[in-house]
Amino acid sequence: MTALNELIESLSRLPGIGPKTASRLAYHLINTDPAYNNILGEEISTIQSKIKNCSICGSFTESDPCEICTDNLRDRTKLCIIEQPQDVITLTTSGVYDGLFHVLGGAINPLEGVGPEKLSFTKLLKRIDEGDFKEVIIATNPTEEGDTTALYLKHILKDKGVEITRLASGLPIGGDLEYADKTTIARSLRGRIKF
Amino acid sequence: MTALNELIESLSRLPGIGPKTASRLAYHLINTDPAYNNILGEEISTIQSKIKNCSICGSFTESDPCEICTDNLRDRTKLCIIEQPQDVITLTTSGVYDGLFHVLGGAINPLEGVGPEKLSFTKLLKRIDEGDFKEVIIATNPTEEGDTTALYLKHILKDKGVEITRLASGLPIGGDLEYADKTTIARSLRGRIKF
Repeated sequence: MTALNELIESLSRLPGIGPKTASRLAYHLINTDPAYNNILGEEISTIQSKIKNCSICGSFTESDPCEICTDNLRDRTKLCIIEQPQDVITLTTSGVYDGLFHVLGGAINPLEGVGPEKLSFTKLLKRIDEGDFKEVIIATNPTEEGDTTALYLKHILKDKGVEITRLASGLPIGGDLEYADKTTIARSLRGRIKF
Repeated sequence: MTALNELIESLSRLPGIGPKTASRLAYHLINTDPAYNNILGEEISTIQSKIKNCSICGSFTESDPCEICTDNLRDRTKLCIIEQPQDVITLTTSGVYDGLFHVLGGAINPLEGVGPEKLSFTKLLKRIDEGDFKEVIIATNPTEEGDTTALYLKHILKDKGVEITRLASGLPIGGDLEYADKTTIARSLRGRIKF
């Protein structure tokens, strides 16, 4: 059964989905509402053409610039620096941050060949020079790479006349920002410390 | 971001996929090879039109009758009775069974309103009357419903002049046939007992 095997093979290429789970999902898809399959299939095929990165902050958006960068009700004196576009969603759902974002596109990781030149630091410095930011909140992951990136940010931002803060601990060390629950995120935002 | 939220919502409707996993998968799909998304999307949209149930045995197939029912090298004196189409794959990959299959479409479960009339027993009796089967192997799940179904099968097949066997224990009780590993399946096939 080529079609079934191909579907199982494709599903098992998704992160965290092994061959057994892929089979279970495939069997489910064979027996489920056909309309659901059409919708899911279409959504997967078209997601990349619908979602792009905001040309200002780098987060995911359907319209460029994104809803956050164009929202005049947000506090334009605060800039939160994050590794990945999805961290925007994690931080906004905490409900305690009303500033802007800047997505680096990763963290400095010399072992994997990710030096500062591969991340959007140049764009960040330009934004800070041209904007009215009073505070930069570093929200890189509490990992070795995130810490290295935070130190690098502290170094390049020290003469920019902005206050530099970092999310308070409360985040589990060695973890990934995206996995933290809302309450933990909210607490670490409220208790952010001078860096 | 409607498109992203819609994709996450659709993914989280898959069995075993919660909102966090759905988000992870969605972010992966945004960043992965676009060709992969097109293939996976197409496979999901079209799987139901490609896979049907074999009109003889009831298992999943792309051509009707299925590859197993039309395979003249298989032992046509053995018939293995299973609950679900996917159990065919589980049993054939064990490599120790070379007979035919019959899919019941479930197990007798009075509490959920699944009586014998909802399963393919009539078709089974017709197959046995018209075929040359010498042995019927009952491979229903080792659950209460599977055991009830096995007893019912024993009852309706007792005057058919076929030997009735059942997969040996070795399968974890309360589990699901589909989850068992190949070795366990192989051992339970080899050690099948008269029922």
